[in-house]
Amino acid sequence: MVNDFFNPTFSPLLIVLSGTAGAGKDSVIRRMRERGVPFEFVVTATSRTPRPGEQNGRDYLFLSAAEFQTMIRNDELLEHAVVYNQHKGIPKKPVLEALGSGRDVLLRVDVQGTATIRRQYPQAVTIFLCASSKEELTRRLLRRGADSAEQVALRLRTALEEMNRVPDFDYRVVNAEGGLDEAVDAIIAILRAEHARATPRKAIS
Amino acid sequence: MVNDFFNPTFSPLLIVLSGTAGAGKDSVIRRMRERGVPFEFVVTATSRTPRPGEQNGRDYLFLSAAEFQTMIRNDELLEHAVVYNQHKGIPKKPVLEALGSGRDVLLRVDVQGTATIRRQYPQAVTIFLCASSKEELTRRLLRRGADSAEQVALRLRTALEEMNRVPDFDYRVVNAEGGLDEAVDAIIAILRAEHARATPRKAIS
Repeated sequence: MVNDFFNPTFSPLLIVLSGTAGAGKDSVIRRMRERGVPFEFVVTATSRTPRPGEQNGRDYLFLSAAEFQTMIRNDELLEHAVVYNQHKGIPKKPVLEALGSGRDVLLRVDVQGTATIRRQYPQAVTIFLCASSKEELTRRLLRRGADSAEQVALRLRTALEEMNRVPDFDYRVVNAEGGLDEAVDAIIAILRAEHARATPRKAIS
Repeated sequence: MVNDFFNPTFSPLLIVLSGTAGAGKDSVIRRMRERGVPFEFVVTATSRTPRPGEQNGRDYLFLSAAEFQTMIRNDELLEHAVVYNQHKGIPKKPVLEALGSGRDVLLRVDVQGTATIRRQYPQAVTIFLCASSKEELTRRLLRRGADSAEQVALRLRTALEEMNRVPDFDYRVVNAEGGLDEAVDAIIAILRAEHARATPRKAIS
């Protein structure tokens, strides 16, 4: 009995990296990989067409609307939603497989989707990534270029509304201009602290 | 309202570093200081006489039994107890002053004392420091030298019983032989993660 506390078993985490548009979720995940942080990234499935530079399986799992319907019917998604008229969802199998083999799983999920995952898996570690100010957030959304002024305005309004959801999350990490490594440091610290919990979060299976 | 989440105020933490005898609490605190971790260490007051090398105000606040009685009477202690026939307790004033001025406070408290502090301040961040095995713990307790075989046996029995209290703590950090910096890294990560909480722990005043 006593020895359990000397040598507790490793409990893999389900980590949800969320935040507003323009928070820099993709940059953070890329830098985490570059720095060798050990985690399994499970990509979101989507029925939209790939944007230039996006790679199937790396950035998203690009599915047809029909394939998506099949996955929904077979209960193969952790959560799914229709966002901007496109299906979006997290495939269940790779998440459960990675956790089952003892690896931390990282998901990139929007603020809405995080609420769904939290309801189903309250033990998920949820991180809200955000810009350091409203001004910075606006600049980033403008910089995307591809969007019209109306789209930028809509995204900004949505992002500012989503900021009110911060208290629903476990952690809040600032990804300031030029502060990508600091944001990654904070996330690494969060994962380390979570693994040092005296009572681990409930296992997911 | 929204801007509160962009710029939340810094919430200082009350951190309790606890663990069994022989866990290496003092070495960890010393190394944390050497590495420039920002915190205010509030020393425990005790009515026992200083051991060789111990310095008043740095290691402990050495008080007479009468001075201790006065502090108890005036409610100037966060918690106090009689351990091995000697008074032991945490002075309240320096803790509240440091927290009030926005600094994290670190206390070194035994497992019993942590239970008292937790009851009074459930928002304290409690860390259980431990050796990496029963064998290592035994070696460390034997190495102290000054104690008799009976005293070592008693301390070991107490330490093993205290290991059962790990689940009452927020975090569990292993201080293995040669792993002092790793233990300190883990504590630094815990403090960083705690400061990244989306909803800070309740302020103490």
